[in-house]
Amino acid sequence: MNLILMETREVTASGEATLADGRATHLLQVLKVTPGQEIRVGLLDGPLGTATVATITESAVTLRCVFDRATPPRPRVDMLLAVPRPKVMRRLWAQLAALGVGQVILTNAERVERDYFDTHLLTEATYRPLLIEGLQQARDTRLPRVSIHRRFKALVEDDLDALFSGGTRIVADPGATASIHTVLGTSHEERILLAVGPEGGWNAFELRLLEDHGFHAVGMGARTLRVDTACVALLAMVRTAT
Amino acid sequence: MNLILMETREVTASGEATLADGRATHLLQVLKVTPGQEIRVGLLDGPLGTATVATITESAVTLRCVFDRATPPRPRVDMLLAVPRPKVMRRLWAQLAALGVGQVILTNAERVERDYFDTHLLTEATYRPLLIEGLQQARDTRLPRVSIHRRFKALVEDDLDALFSGGTRIVADPGATASIHTVLGTSHEERILLAVGPEGGWNAFELRLLEDHGFHAVGMGARTLRVDTACVALLAMVRTAT
Repeated sequence: MNLILMETREVTASGEATLADGRATHLLQVLKVTPGQEIRVGLLDGPLGTATVATITESAVTLRCVFDRATPPRPRVDMLLAVPRPKVMRRLWAQLAALGVGQVILTNAERVERDYFDTHLLTEATYRPLLIEGLQQARDTRLPRVSIHRRFKALVEDDLDALFSGGTRIVADPGATASIHTVLGTSHEERILLAVGPEGGWNAFELRLLEDHGFHAVGMGARTLRVDTACVALLAMVRTAT
Repeated sequence: MNLILMETREVTASGEATLADGRATHLLQVLKVTPGQEIRVGLLDGPLGTATVATITESAVTLRCVFDRATPPRPRVDMLLAVPRPKVMRRLWAQLAALGVGQVILTNAERVERDYFDTHLLTEATYRPLLIEGLQQARDTRLPRVSIHRRFKALVEDDLDALFSGGTRIVADPGATASIHTVLGTSHEERILLAVGPEGGWNAFELRLLEDHGFHAVGMGARTLRVDTACVALLAMVRTAT
């Protein structure tokens, strides 16, 4: 935890916040803070800041916070992800937030098993704390937006332009030879949407539909990666390419 | 499992192998193979090949294998990794093998907790199957070599030249501004050694010692990543940079 994130409602108008949950435990037992000490804080979807430890009890910490004026920009990469199996999805949430994505668009696909949608990992109550964990790791405040789409065709044809307009769309495809570098070229401003298919890949229809809707297919080399490894690798590649 | 890997001793001189463990279960229950079907196989640290399913029983599959002449090259990236906490180490083994590393050099550092060395995750009996899982995912046969070093200074000063000679040495350091691209330049042939520190980073002495022994410090941007995320991201960055 490299940053303590708080909800706006947890902080009084004068900048005081009392924490009594896992964040307090972390401050007391891992960072072993003492009164007067300064720590990094942030408001969810708001600015970063600094807090001074005011008072400490056995299980609670009161902070006096001063926040920056500006909120960090939303990460410029979005992900379109075929819902992976729950074990992989669980691993991904925090990593996506840590690497920085503006939104996570989860979709069905032929090779997504139907029960993957029924997992509690796709409920906000489960994924929100995992996303916040990733933000606290990476020192960001920008909570990725999440939307879940059970119909791939309707998503791509009807909804996607509203979710993502005006940037570069990329789909990872083992059959493609173009590199991310080539496709991204010198676009350093635009938003980027990165599509990653299910274990086993998109089927031919899905890949065609994506390409018909402006996605450029890029290869990732000969090695087939697990979905979570592939997502992290792709986000890292985009970062170095831009 | 995109490839069934076997030990040389499991295959007879005529190329026959009978599997009765998790690989057989995978063939029977996931791939649902039938006699005559062809599947991808490989020999650990040997060539890739093709096998025809010869006979099937309830729990065993007999394969007739034909292997390529050449063994795939050893991946050209090695990792020097401060032993992470067990939960992270467990996640890393398969991902390192899947992304492709020639060797994993595990080391102590000031911010590595002492009991991290006592975990069963650092025993060959535990990590070998995890490495093989990663190879089977990525369709590679080259098992990363693993060595474990409890004394960082002795490793860097005395042992490292024998483990890694004649390539480019890189250390990830949040304070550095040089990019991997800049440091790797146009070296497309050389081996690369990538050093990743503990949660909390190398201390100043360790970083200095690495730089004194030829490591170039590279930054990874403003976001602090968990060790496993950072390893995957760095390996992906190296791949696109070369």
